[in-house]
Amino acid sequence: MSSLRTTSDLVSLAEIEGAAERLAGITVRTPLVPFPLPPGAPALLVKPESLQPVGAFKLRGAYAAISSLPDDVRKRGVVTHSSGNHARAVAYTARELGIRAVLVMPHTTPAVKVDACRELGAEVVYVEPTAEARVETADRLANAHGFTMIPPYDDPRVIAGQGTVGLEIVQDRPDVDVVLVPISGGGLVSGVAAAVKALRPRARVIGVEPELAADARDSLRLGRPVSWTAEDTGRTIADGLRVQRVGDLPFAHIQALVDGIVTVTEDEIKATMRRLARETRLVSEPSGAVATAAYLHHRDELPEGAAYASVLSGGNVDPALFQEVYA
Amino acid sequence: MSSLRTTSDLVSLAEIEGAAERLAGITVRTPLVPFPLPPGAPALLVKPESLQPVGAFKLRGAYAAISSLPDDVRKRGVVTHSSGNHARAVAYTARELGIRAVLVMPHTTPAVKVDACRELGAEVVYVEPTAEARVETADRLANAHGFTMIPPYDDPRVIAGQGTVGLEIVQDRPDVDVVLVPISGGGLVSGVAAAVKALRPRARVIGVEPELAADARDSLRLGRPVSWTAEDTGRTIADGLRVQRVGDLPFAHIQALVDGIVTVTEDEIKATMRRLARETRLVSEPSGAVATAAYLHHRDELPEGAAYASVLSGGNVDPALFQEVYA
Repeated sequence: MSSLRTTSDLVSLAEIEGAAERLAGITVRTPLVPFPLPPGAPALLVKPESLQPVGAFKLRGAYAAISSLPDDVRKRGVVTHSSGNHARAVAYTARELGIRAVLVMPHTTPAVKVDACRELGAEVVYVEPTAEARVETADRLANAHGFTMIPPYDDPRVIAGQGTVGLEIVQDRPDVDVVLVPISGGGLVSGVAAAVKALRPRARVIGVEPELAADARDSLRLGRPVSWTAEDTGRTIADGLRVQRVGDLPFAHIQALVDGIVTVTEDEIKATMRRLARETRLVSEPSGAVATAAYLHHRDELPEGAAYASVLSGGNVDPALFQEVYA
Repeated sequence: MSSLRTTSDLVSLAEIEGAAERLAGITVRTPLVPFPLPPGAPALLVKPESLQPVGAFKLRGAYAAISSLPDDVRKRGVVTHSSGNHARAVAYTARELGIRAVLVMPHTTPAVKVDACRELGAEVVYVEPTAEARVETADRLANAHGFTMIPPYDDPRVIAGQGTVGLEIVQDRPDVDVVLVPISGGGLVSGVAAAVKALRPRARVIGVEPELAADARDSLRLGRPVSWTAEDTGRTIADGLRVQRVGDLPFAHIQALVDGIVTVTEDEIKATMRRLARETRLVSEPSGAVATAAYLHHRDELPEGAAYASVLSGGNVDPALFQEVYA
């Protein structure tokens, strides 16, 4: 897919603006919601991607990628290997565009996630729960049926779609100083950084990870993408951020454009989910709360500024967990 | 306040557009959030006013009214008699504009509501818990100190501010067929109807009330504003909709512009709060859920259409109640 471009080719503002045009009327133009703070504190503006149709920013990347395919290619359908919000976003997009979506998922995927995709009309193919099995099966299906593979993050069209989050932040707050973004595979932070740095070079973009899944921080330190084990990243409640290693193209963006990475604890994630629900009336999943947690608990580690924005990346939380943290 | 205009003078689109200009950068431009529905169902788009700084649409009316005062009048400060979201909105506005706000509240007001206003810098004056005591005290303070009274709904400037909700709905969905709006004192539905009918005359505007506080429905039927007793309206959990009688100027708007009023049960309100949190990831207060409940439970009583919008008017819910309905 990305064989025509090397990892040094970063996504451009024009590509992000092109994605924004295709997304108009499909994704929600999420606002910046002021987090209530004591007088004198720098402003914190939360961008609630939890309000997208699939409950997460992932719809931006999936729709941007699939809608950019030539008609005859798109008509043949799409395939992806993901069990989370990206799969749901691909399923939603396929339904909107009237094409087939095949999702390759480990047979251990919770039924509730599988059902959400099936309700959108997607076909699910179960495999053994290893990364190899997923990728191989998805590749095989793509070759056999002419489906296009839609990767969750290591793809310039997906990154351009996620970048529309950054575009909207700067459009709404041209004076933004610091933008806080969760990092998992790195697609979101890459797109946001590409947009923000193009439009407002003096703004700082900071990635945020759980302390228990800090592979991107380690990668940035070591100057190459490093992997954490599935056992290690599996410890965080932030299930959307358990990817073991950032993608190659995202890593190139992180190295070039991201100003730093901070980590947050599990208790900080839970406390922030609670405050987001009680004080800004937004339901977030654990992964969705990390960027806001970085402001609330680690402001001393962040660049200084008068206006901070944090991306609340998604709200697909297990109801029992939400109830526990809200109480 | 409204002595210069009779109840037959409805708020104009120009007044609402003027309010929208003053609100830019102060209120959140809330999006329309699609409620997930089975294939074939008409679209339902939720406008989450719960995301405003004070957690409710009330900031629009309060800010629109106070910002329209001449400088020398505004400088002397404002007073209102409300213990709910309107009081908080007046307090927030006064802080933004650097003026005094005095709030006349019954001494029975829950401490959490009083504290929220005091934290915003407002002064609170306690009175006996009767409507007469509140209005008399507020009038006395206004006369003695030169404060301007900012009524919660029976005021053209307040109605113009609330009307910006309708303006935004039609701007975002020019094809909207039916707009569902909660009714309490009637300020919100008046402004929304004025905007929607001016921009899209064929759209229908429907008011929604709890079955246990259906004074506006009775008023529309009888052709004059009728009061319910405080005991009766006090039975609904929708504490924002316990006003006993719509205002005179709102009633004129309702008679001229509102196409009907439907009522919802207490169980429907709770079930809708739960679905809004789980399916659209929005925390609502009971009053905030009634318009969406009308679509989910009473669509057979509504005008037909392909696109419905419902106003989620606020999200300031008692945490214990929210926990109960979410479970």
